[in-house]
Amino acid sequence: MPGRRSGGRAGNARRLAGSAIRQLPWRIPQNRDRPTEPIDAEALHRIHDGAMRILEEIGILFLNEEALRVLAEAGCDVDRESARVRMDRGFVMEQVAKAPESFTITPRNPAREVAVGGDAMLFVNVSSPPNAMDLDRGRRPGDRAAFQDLLKLTQYFNCVHLAGGYPVEPTDIHPSVRHLDALYDKLTLTDKVVHAYSLGPERVEDAMEMVRIAGGLSHAEFEARPRMYTNINSSSPLKHDWPMLDGAMRLARRGQPVIVTPFTLAGAMAPVTLAGALAQQTAEALAAIALLQCIRPGVPVAYGSFTSNVDMKSGAPAFGTPEYMRATQISGQLARFYKLPLRASNANAANAPDAQAAWESAFSLWACVSAKANVVYHAAGWLEGGLIASYEKFVMDCEMLQQIMHYMEPVPCTDADVAIEAIAEVGPRGHFFGATHTQARYEAAFYAPFLSDWRNYESWSASGAQQTPERANRIWKQILAEFEPPPLDPAVEEELRAFVERRKREGGAPTDF
Amino acid sequence: MPGRRSGGRAGNARRLAGSAIRQLPWRIPQNRDRPTEPIDAEALHRIHDGAMRILEEIGILFLNEEALRVLAEAGCDVDRESARVRMDRGFVMEQVAKAPESFTITPRNPAREVAVGGDAMLFVNVSSPPNAMDLDRGRRPGDRAAFQDLLKLTQYFNCVHLAGGYPVEPTDIHPSVRHLDALYDKLTLTDKVVHAYSLGPERVEDAMEMVRIAGGLSHAEFEARPRMYTNINSSSPLKHDWPMLDGAMRLARRGQPVIVTPFTLAGAMAPVTLAGALAQQTAEALAAIALLQCIRPGVPVAYGSFTSNVDMKSGAPAFGTPEYMRATQISGQLARFYKLPLRASNANAANAPDAQAAWESAFSLWACVSAKANVVYHAAGWLEGGLIASYEKFVMDCEMLQQIMHYMEPVPCTDADVAIEAIAEVGPRGHFFGATHTQARYEAAFYAPFLSDWRNYESWSASGAQQTPERANRIWKQILAEFEPPPLDPAVEEELRAFVERRKREGGAPTDF
Repeated sequence: MPGRRSGGRAGNARRLAGSAIRQLPWRIPQNRDRPTEPIDAEALHRIHDGAMRILEEIGILFLNEEALRVLAEAGCDVDRESARVRMDRGFVMEQVAKAPESFTITPRNPAREVAVGGDAMLFVNVSSPPNAMDLDRGRRPGDRAAFQDLLKLTQYFNCVHLAGGYPVEPTDIHPSVRHLDALYDKLTLTDKVVHAYSLGPERVEDAMEMVRIAGGLSHAEFEARPRMYTNINSSSPLKHDWPMLDGAMRLARRGQPVIVTPFTLAGAMAPVTLAGALAQQTAEALAAIALLQCIRPGVPVAYGSFTSNVDMKSGAPAFGTPEYMRATQISGQLARFYKLPLRASNANAANAPDAQAAWESAFSLWACVSAKANVVYHAAGWLEGGLIASYEKFVMDCEMLQQIMHYMEPVPCTDADVAIEAIAEVGPRGHFFGATHTQARYEAAFYAPFLSDWRNYESWSASGAQQTPERANRIWKQILAEFEPPPLDPAVEEELRAFVERRKREGGAPTDF
Repeated sequence: MPGRRSGGRAGNARRLAGSAIRQLPWRIPQNRDRPTEPIDAEALHRIHDGAMRILEEIGILFLNEEALRVLAEAGCDVDRESARVRMDRGFVMEQVAKAPESFTITPRNPAREVAVGGDAMLFVNVSSPPNAMDLDRGRRPGDRAAFQDLLKLTQYFNCVHLAGGYPVEPTDIHPSVRHLDALYDKLTLTDKVVHAYSLGPERVEDAMEMVRIAGGLSHAEFEARPRMYTNINSSSPLKHDWPMLDGAMRLARRGQPVIVTPFTLAGAMAPVTLAGALAQQTAEALAAIALLQCIRPGVPVAYGSFTSNVDMKSGAPAFGTPEYMRATQISGQLARFYKLPLRASNANAANAPDAQAAWESAFSLWACVSAKANVVYHAAGWLEGGLIASYEKFVMDCEMLQQIMHYMEPVPCTDADVAIEAIAEVGPRGHFFGATHTQARYEAAFYAPFLSDWRNYESWSASGAQQTPERANRIWKQILAEFEPPPLDPAVEEELRAFVERRKREGGAPTDF
């Protein structure tokens, strides 16, 4: 279905069929392969036991009064003065067991519903870089125009399943009202699942209200199932900050999912050993998950892995490294042990959309697939360890994501596929281009890339010798030029707009946290 | 062991320690992970059954009188006129069962001995491109200078285990004597396992004789164990050509290993379905392997997979695609079924050492690792579907190969690695940079790349904003400038030189086949 958009009108579909890129249709890839498991059951148990000892003996800081109250009531050992909570393993495992193994999230367009968990693998746009970059304008602070551009790419590509965090920070909007304009853009330029940053009560409540309005939902309908989600990071080592906990608890109370992703860079905020960093990652993640299960038993959560290593010379984070790959795969083993969905990332530390960016991303994606990650953050557009949202990298990543989606399709092996008759027909002196067996199948036989250039050197040179980023540059420009937003009931759009205006008049959210 | 070379003199080791890149020491990576197996036993058996039916019902052309004679004597159904051989599955499986599951190859420097099979994974330099390319001189026909440069890189990098085919074709040497100069360069500039092209009796016999001389071996010692190898390609569909069979039989007779790699591009020389292409690949490979086991029962062989797809618009071969990945993984299943070592490739179809080259290579390597390939051809330096040997890509590939070698090291998970004491010591308000646990481990904790640039954008820009190929360019120049060949007994070198001179005076090899 070249260029077709969910909900697109017939006229668009026709117009785009010839001009926009050919892309795969919307679908949720199913990762049916056995995962790669670097460590055995005994080693896995040693990391689990380490995590339990951290929770029991060392404790985690919960810098949030309400969280402390809830955990104290649940019987945890809470030191109010230091905000340190110790919880025993029986309690933690009991709470974690209440979380579902899988769940769905339904955005305003129900056709974009996603399943989180099991074999499903979801790709999320790049989230949260402060800078945007493209070949024409270079690296610059993110603004609302770049934010909207990257949202359009997020919406356009069927291989991007969620409109996660801000694809770039729109720094030209005042922080007090940024979330209002940003959510408005997200909910009008995309119809995919959106995310709310846990940055204080007003922002989180505004986001939930806007998602409810955009879906045309009553409050009861909003709470009846997951409609959006948040992702919180611990402040490693061993600390959950106030706004993250506040937002997570607000979403949990209304049945909305929370991904908990500790920021355990080995050698910096966590031990230099992967086993130690993963024990700490697990302790920090399960501590918050246990809290949320106390708040609302059964609320959907996911175990987030971000463990990687740092360059020990400079302290700079590294991604897509051998350590990142193994940490992600072992995180998969841990997630399955706790029966929780796994979040990981398509990460790299390159400063340009070049070969290093591509191999670090490919290695990250290899790790995500072989770990059976359910949610792949930063799947399209990340550069410079998350400090750059790159237009060209976005397009390049989507090429890789599509290839992985195709890779996950089963390989048919019927007798007709084994093709003895065709082999006999062609014989030892022919070729298969004209064979009946080929003619019946060639259009859909192979994955067709939109970005790779497979021509020979002479043809490629004659047409300008364009390298990958130049070709990606041409593609994003075409997509943006042709973009039309997904349909939205004008009354709903008006209600969203009115909400934004009212909340702006009220001053938005405080900016002094 | 930065910059240390096997057999290097102490003076060199010292000098290089500071100036050459830091690289991993020589070692054979052990791939202990479970393979990815895309199809179930029933589907695997259907491909096997298809291969057997091709051999039994359709037959394979053996364009070589001696091969036909051997197979007729062994009881196969041989049609002398068409050169078509049909062999029943009982015969094929009986012959294949004689081949060893694993074997070693010992080059002139015994410290460079390699194991083929089991968990061992070997990387071979790029082989056979007609063109060389680098950033300074662009793409140009291969010559002896480029050939020698690329051999020096092959020798330098410890992650390249075999000096396989010609890293680029030295087209400035007359074809009648090219093999003599090329083998002389290979045996003097490297001390790793070398390969002989099966391009007529004279070339193969010369190559065996030169390997024997370089190793200081008697004829009996040469034949006592594998000292070199050849790789033959079928002329798909369903055909083995004369020179390939001749060379393979000559090596087999003297106990030297043969890799059999059909050239089954799906949609062109093989069915458009992967199952069909793999059935044909298997039939073509096993047909030659059965012949070689008749020639010398137990001779080491390997099952070569090269199945990929073509661009159905242009017919151009594609590599590192989803189809290539699955074909390679299923080839791994087939190789294990037949208890044969597997050869695959690090392939791509890009025209420049850019992002596409990197992701196609990374996906190819992912396929090789998850297939448990034992021999990875073209592991360093391949571009343009094998038409270009790229200096910069060679260096980039070695960075990827080193990362994969590090990835294959076990992840330690002792109690000391889980690091509860360090986590308690650092607590929630510190960081791990200065912790005792970190200090004791940080130097060897993580893989240190020689090519990746992990600095932040500002530092990277200030130092020239070099993208990956530019950095690779600087590195290969440094390596070539500092290169010293591995030690070789002057008497042996003189004997090699005399052999080359004598064979040149005799006219070398015929060029009219």
